[in-house]
Amino acid sequence: MKDIRKRKTEHIDIVAKDASMDRRKFYFDDIRLTHRALPEINLADVDPSVEFLGKKLSFPFLISSMTGGSDEQIRTINHNLARAAEAEGVAMGVGSQRVMFSDPAARASFELRAAAPHALLFSNLGAVQINEGMTISQIRSAVDALNADALILHLNPLQEAVQPEGDINFSGLCEKIAEVVRDLCRPVIVKEVGAGISRADAELLVQAGVKIIDVAGAGGTSWSRIEAARSGDPSLGELFQDWGIPTPQALRELSDLDVTLIASGGIRTGIDMAKAMILDASLCGMARPLLTPAMESVDAVRAVIQRIRKEFVTAMFLLGAENVEQLKGNRSLILSS
Amino acid sequence: MKDIRKRKTEHIDIVAKDASMDRRKFYFDDIRLTHRALPEINLADVDPSVEFLGKKLSFPFLISSMTGGSDEQIRTINHNLARAAEAEGVAMGVGSQRVMFSDPAARASFELRAAAPHALLFSNLGAVQINEGMTISQIRSAVDALNADALILHLNPLQEAVQPEGDINFSGLCEKIAEVVRDLCRPVIVKEVGAGISRADAELLVQAGVKIIDVAGAGGTSWSRIEAARSGDPSLGELFQDWGIPTPQALRELSDLDVTLIASGGIRTGIDMAKAMILDASLCGMARPLLTPAMESVDAVRAVIQRIRKEFVTAMFLLGAENVEQLKGNRSLILSS
Amino acid sequence: MKDIRKRKTEHIDIVAKDASMDRRKFYFDDIRLTHRALPEINLADVDPSVEFLGKKLSFPFLISSMTGGSDEQIRTINHNLARAAEAEGVAMGVGSQRVMFSDPAARASFELRAAAPHALLFSNLGAVQINEGMTISQIRSAVDALNADALILHLNPLQEAVQPEGDINFSGLCEKIAEVVRDLCRPVIVKEVGAGISRADAELLVQAGVKIIDVAGAGGTSWSRIEAARSGDPSLGELFQDWGIPTPQALRELSDLDVTLIASGGIRTGIDMAKAMILDASLCGMARPLLTPAMESVDAVRAVIQRIRKEFVTAMFLLGAENVEQLKGNRSLILSS
Amino acid sequence: MKDIRKRKTEHIDIVAKDASMDRRKFYFDDIRLTHRALPEINLADVDPSVEFLGKKLSFPFLISSMTGGSDEQIRTINHNLARAAEAEGVAMGVGSQRVMFSDPAARASFELRAAAPHALLFSNLGAVQINEGMTISQIRSAVDALNADALILHLNPLQEAVQPEGDINFSGLCEKIAEVVRDLCRPVIVKEVGAGISRADAELLVQAGVKIIDVAGAGGTSWSRIEAARSGDPSLGELFQDWGIPTPQALRELSDLDVTLIASGGIRTGIDMAKAMILDASLCGMARPLLTPAMESVDAVRAVIQRIRKEFVTAMFLLGAENVEQLKGNRSLILSS
Ligand SMILES: Cc1cc2nc3c(=O)[nH]c(=O)nc-3n(C[C@H](O)[C@H](O)[C@H](O)COP(=O)(O)O)c2cc1C
Ligand SMILES: Cc1cc2nc3c(=O)[nH]c(=O)nc-3n(C[C@H](O)[C@H](O)[C@H](O)COP(=O)(O)O)c2cc1C
Ligand SMILES: Cc1cc2nc3c(=O)[nH]c(=O)nc-3n(C[C@H](O)[C@H](O)[C@H](O)COP(=O)(O)O)c2cc1C
Ligand SMILES: Cc1cc2nc3c(=O)[nH]c(=O)nc-3n(C[C@H](O)[C@H](O)[C@H](O)COP(=O)(O)O)c2cc1C
Repeated sequence: MKDIRKRKTEHIDIVAKDASMDRRKFYFDDIRLTHRALPEINLADVDPSVEFLGKKLSFPFLISSMTGGSDEQIRTINHNLARAAEAEGVAMGVGSQRVMFSDPAARASFELRAAAPHALLFSNLGAVQINEGMTISQIRSAVDALNADALILHLNPLQEAVQPEGDINFSGLCEKIAEVVRDLCRPVIVKEVGAGISRADAELLVQAGVKIIDVAGAGGTSWSRIEAARSGDPSLGELFQDWGIPTPQALRELSDLDVTLIASGGIRTGIDMAKAMILDASLCGMARPLLTPAMESVDAVRAVIQRIRKEFVTAMFLLGAENVEQLKGNRSLILSS
Repeated sequence: MKDIRKRKTEHIDIVAKDASMDRRKFYFDDIRLTHRALPEINLADVDPSVEFLGKKLSFPFLISSMTGGSDEQIRTINHNLARAAEAEGVAMGVGSQRVMFSDPAARASFELRAAAPHALLFSNLGAVQINEGMTISQIRSAVDALNADALILHLNPLQEAVQPEGDINFSGLCEKIAEVVRDLCRPVIVKEVGAGISRADAELLVQAGVKIIDVAGAGGTSWSRIEAARSGDPSLGELFQDWGIPTPQALRELSDLDVTLIASGGIRTGIDMAKAMILDASLCGMARPLLTPAMESVDAVRAVIQRIRKEFVTAMFLLGAENVEQLKGNRSLILSS
Repeated sequence: MKDIRKRKTEHIDIVAKDASMDRRKFYFDDIRLTHRALPEINLADVDPSVEFLGKKLSFPFLISSMTGGSDEQIRTINHNLARAAEAEGVAMGVGSQRVMFSDPAARASFELRAAAPHALLFSNLGAVQINEGMTISQIRSAVDALNADALILHLNPLQEAVQPEGDINFSGLCEKIAEVVRDLCRPVIVKEVGAGISRADAELLVQAGVKIIDVAGAGGTSWSRIEAARSGDPSLGELFQDWGIPTPQALRELSDLDVTLIASGGIRTGIDMAKAMILDASLCGMARPLLTPAMESVDAVRAVIQRIRKEFVTAMFLLGAENVEQLKGNRSLILSS
Repeated sequence: MKDIRKRKTEHIDIVAKDASMDRRKFYFDDIRLTHRALPEINLADVDPSVEFLGKKLSFPFLISSMTGGSDEQIRTINHNLARAAEAEGVAMGVGSQRVMFSDPAARASFELRAAAPHALLFSNLGAVQINEGMTISQIRSAVDALNADALILHLNPLQEAVQPEGDINFSGLCEKIAEVVRDLCRPVIVKEVGAGISRADAELLVQAGVKIIDVAGAGGTSWSRIEAARSGDPSLGELFQDWGIPTPQALRELSDLDVTLIASGGIRTGIDMAKAMILDASLCGMARPLLTPAMESVDAVRAVIQRIRKEFVTAMFLLGAENVEQLKGNRSLILSS
C-alpha cells in the first residue's frame, strides 16, 4: 500500500519537474493543412461543440487520465481538474484506480461527481490487473466511485516491462477485456499510455466488442523514461523512451476500422487537435500540460483549456469548418506536398 | 479613428524593426533551375518588360500593398514608393484605404497619381469590410483617390482572427466580391496577405468573375506574428505564425485555372521571381524589403528595384530567355531531381 | 613475427581508446517497429533461446571475432570472453589465428575449449591468406586449437588495401574458399569485417558451397579508420572510413538467398538485434562494445551480455513474440512510414 | 592589356586564399557505391590507365584549365603543372589563352610542349570571344603555342554576366562553334567553368559536331563568387554563387548522348572519380586543389595526383574492377537505397 502511494507521488514529481519526460517530438508538425482565404463563415458562428456518449462537450477535449490516491496533493489535483472539466464542458479521465483496492483512503480522490455533476467522467484501471486477480466487482466499485460515464482500461506493457515491480503477464488479456465489455453496464474505452495502439491490437479489441479506442501514441509523455528515472538502472527505460507508434500514424492505421477513436500522446495545441480530428479522431486528450496547472488551481487549468479551445476554433475558421462534422475525417484539408 | 491610425504606425514600426516578422522560409530555394551554358542570346538584348492591364512595365514587378494614413511618415512612405514606381516603371499597390472612410485626412496619402502619372497603381481594401457595411460608393471613392488601374481586395481571415479588434465575419463574402466585380468599372484583383489562396478559394473566386489573383502565400511577412506582437497575449498569433500555403505551392495549385496569377509572399530576389514566373505568375510582388528603403528616400527604393531587376535579367539570360514569354510557364527550366 | 604481435596490440589499443573508430552511424534507427499494446503473452514466458549449429544459445548473440596472440593482455581478453560466453550461453568467435603460424606462443590464447566446454566457438582466419600460402593443414590446426564448432573465414579487402603491409591478392579466392568448404569437416562461415557482403559476393559464396554468411556491414567499427591511425599517412584510410554497405541494407539484399545470415557491424542494443532478426538474421554479433569489458573481467563482459539480452527480451515482448521464430523474418513488425 | 593581366593574378590570389570560393557541396556524397568483399582480383593488377585521343594516361585524370599570362608566378604555375602532367602521365589544360592576343609576352606561359613532350595538352579559349572578333587564325595560333592535342572552348555566361567588364553576347554562338569544329584540324572540347552543361546545351553542341563535352558542373569552384570578390558590389555574384547543375546530375542528364564526357566541378577524391566514371565520364578534371601545390613545386603537384590515383585504384579494387572498362558506365555498382 505504501509502495503504490509512494509511486504515485514519485510519478507526479518526475513528470512535473523534468521536462525531458515530454518527448516533444511534434509528430503532427509533419502534416500541413490547407488554408481558406475565403472561409465563407463567421468566426463567431464556429461551433466546436460535440456530443460524446450522449453528453455535450464545448469542444472535443479530454483531460487524459493522470492520477489518484490518498495523498493530499493528489486529491487536490483531481478536484481541480474535475471542477475545470465541469466549468469548461470537457471530458475528464482519472488516473488508475487500482490504489483504491489496497488503500481505501484513496477513494476520496476519485469521488469527483459532486465537483463535476454534468461532466463526462471516465474511470481508469490497468487491464493487466485482471490477470493479477482484479475482479469484476472491484471494477464496478471503481466505476461507482466516480459514477463514471465509461470505464477506461489502459494497456501499458512497456511501462510494466521497464519497472522492477511491473505486472508483466499480458497473456490472454483480450478475452478478459471482452468479458468486462460484456459484464459491465458502461461503455469500455481501451487506451495505451504513450506507445500507441497498433492495427493488430485494434483488430483484436474490435473483436472483443470494444467500441472506443484512445491510441495514446508516442511523441508526448514517455512512461518508459519516467520509470527509468525512478529505477536504479535507467538504461532499459531510456533505450525504450521513444518506442512506439507516433500518434498521427496510429490514427491513420486505425481510421478505417469500425471504432470511435480518441487521439492522445503529444497533442499540445488546437492545431494538433484539428489535425487529429481530420485523421478521424472524435475526441483529443492531453495529460502532461495540465499537470502543473492542476497543482495550482482550477483557474490555471481552465486557462489552458480556454487557450486550446481558442486555437482549435481559430483553426476551424481558417479551414472553413463551421462545425466539427465538417472537420472530422475531411482529408481534403491536408495539403499534399 | 485614433485606433486605426495608431494601428497603422504600430504595424510599420513592428515590421521595420523586428526581423522575425519576415519568416525567411525561402520556400523557392527547393526549386532548382537548369542552366544554359549556351543561352544563344545577348545579355544586352534580354528584355524583361511585360504588359499588365494595358500598361508596360520595365519588368514584372509589383510594390505590394503596405500602408496609407494621415500620419506624416506614412504619407512619405507612399510618396517615395510611388515616385520610385514611376521612375522604375513598375506597378504599385497601396495599403488598405479603409482608413480614408473614418479619417478624411488620410486621403492625401493615397493621392499618388500626380507622383506616378504613368505607373500601374492599385487601390486596396479588405474584402471583409463589405460585411461590415462598406458600400460600393466607398469602394469607388477609394479607387478614385488614386485614379487606380485596378482594385485589390485582400482576404485576411488569419490576421483578423488573431487580433482582438478583428473583423471576423467572412460569411457570404464571395457573393459580395462577385457584386463588386460586376459593379465596379475597374478590374478587381483578389489577394491574401501572407497565408495563400488555396485551390478551393480560387475556384470560388473564378466563379465570382475574378480574373486576377495574387496568391500572397506563406514564407515571407507573417501578419499573424505582427498581430501577436501588438497584442497583450502573443500566444495565439505566434502559434499561427507559419500557417498557410507556401507561395510556390500555391502557384502550382492554381496554375491550370483560367486566371492571371500574381506571386507574392517571401519573394526576395530576382531568382525567386524567375521561379515564380516559371510557375505561371504574370507579376511578382514584394512588400517588407521595400519598407525601410521607403522610409528613407525614393532613391533607396529605386536601388532595391534596380538590384532585383538586374538579378532577374541575369537569371533570364542564364536560362536562355530573351523575353518574358519564353520564361512564363516554361516548366522545362526546372531541374528535376 | 614481432610485427604481427605488435599489430595486434596496436589494434586493441586504438579501438579501446579512440571512440571515433566506432562510426556510430546507427543505421538501424531508420527502421521503426510496430508496438503491441496487447502482446497477449507473459513477459516471463518470452523465450529468446535459439539453436545454432546444433547447440542451444540463451539468445541469438555472438561475441564477434576480435583478437588472439602471445601477449598476456590478449590472452586475458580471450579467456574473459570465453568464460562469459560459457556462462551466458552465447556464441564466440576468436580473432584471426594466423598469428599462431608464425608465433607458436600465440596458440594458448585460442585454447578456449576448457574455459567454454559447451559454448559455440568459432575459429577465424583471413581468407586472403590462402592466396599467401596458408595450407589446409594450417587451417585444420587453427580449428583444432579451439576445437571449434565452425571456421570463420573473413574477407577484408579494404583493411588490407589501406595498410602498408597489406595482403592484397584477392584473385581467385572464391574457388579456394570452395575447396576449404569441401575439405574441412566443419561448417565454414564467411564474414566481412565492417564493410559488408554485397549481393554479388553472396551469390558467389553460395555457389562455393558456403551456408552461413555474416554480413559484418558498415556503421560500427571501421577498420579503414583503425589502419589509418596506425599508418604514417592517414589520408587514404580516413577517406574510406565509411565505405561499405550499411548492415541493415546488406541484410535486406541477401534475405532471399538460400543461406543462413549473421548480422554484425554497428549492432549496439537489443532493439537493433530485434530489427536484424526481423531482417532474417539468425544470429547477431557485436565486437567493439565488448572489448573494454573484456580487458576488465568476466563479470564485466557478462553484464553487457545480460543488458543486451534484457533489451532483446523486452523488445520481443512488446512485439508480441513469445519465441524467436515469431520474430525472424516477420516483416509485418516493421512500421511502414 | 594591363587589365587582363591584373585580372588573372587577382583570380589566382582570390582562389588560393579564400576557401569559400570552393563551394564544397560534395554532391557526389549522395551516391553510395556497393562494396565487393570478394573482388576476385589482385590490387597489384588493377590497371587504372586509359587512352584518350590516342594517348595513354596513367589514369583518367585531367589538370583542369586554370591560368596563363606574362606574369612570372603564372608562368611558374603552368610549368609546374606541365612537368607534373608529364611525369604522372595525366592530361592538362591551360587557362584561357586570350591574353596572348593582347600581350605577346604571355605566350611563353603556354609553351609547355617542351616541358611535357608526351602529355595530352589542351589549349583553352572562351567561346564568347568569337562573338567579340576572335578569328580562326588567332585560335590556330593559340593551339600552336602549346602544340595542343585538342582545343577547349569554354562557355561561361554566368562569369561574364556578373563581372562589370564581361563579354555578354552569347547569341548565335553555337553556329560559330560549329565552324571552329569544321575548320580546326584538332578535336574541339566544349566545357563550362562550374555551372554545368545542360541537356539542351549538349544537344546543340552535338549537332554542331562537338564530340567531347566537359560538364564542369556546380559544387566546386564558383566563378560567380570569385567575380563577386573582385567587384565593388558583391551582391549579384554572391546570389548566383551556387547557381548551376551539380556535376553528378549533369553527367546523368548527358549519359545517353553520343558524346565523350569529361567530369569536373567539385571532384576532390579518387572515390568521386570512380563515381563520375560509373556515370559515364571518360576523364575527370580537377582545378582548384592543384593551384596552391602548383605555386609551390612540381613535386607538390605530383603528390596530389599520386594521392588521387591511389584513392582511385583502391576504389576500383573494392568494386572488383580490374580495369577502367569494367568501371565505366557500370550502374550496377551504385547501391540503390
Ligand atoms: C502524470 C501522468 C500520469 C498518468 N497516469 C495514467 C494512468 O494512471 N492511467 C492511464 O491510462 N494513463 C496515464 N497517463 C497517460 C496519459 O493518460 C496519456 O495517455 C499520455 O500521457 C499521453 O498524453 P500526453 O503526451 O498529453 O501527456 C498518465 C500521464 C501522466 C503525464
Ligand atoms: C508593413 C506591411 C503592411 C501591409 N499592409 C497590407 C495591406 O494594407 N493590404 C494588403 O493587401 N496587404 C498588406 N500587406 C501584405 C503584403 O502586401 C504582402 O501580401 C505580404 O507582406 C507578403 O509579401 P512580403 O513577404 O514580400 O512582405 C502588408 C505588408 C507589410 C509588410
Ligand atoms: C578490436 C577488434 C578486432 C577485430 N579483429 C577481427 C579479426 O581478427 N577477424 C575478424 O573476422 N573480424 C575482426 N574484427 C571485426 C569484428 O568481428 C566485426 O565484424 C566488426 O567489428 C563489426 O562489429 P562492431 O561494429 O560490433 O565492432 C575485429 C573487431 C575489433 C573491434
Ligand atoms: C584559378 C582558376 C582559374 C580558372 N580558369 C579557367 C580558364 O581560364 N578556362 C576554363 O575553361 N576554366 C577555368 N577554370 C575552371 C576550371 O577549369 C574548372 O572547370 C572548375 O574550376 C571546376 O573545377 P574545380 O571544382 O575542381 O575547381 C578555372 C578554375 C580555377 C580554380
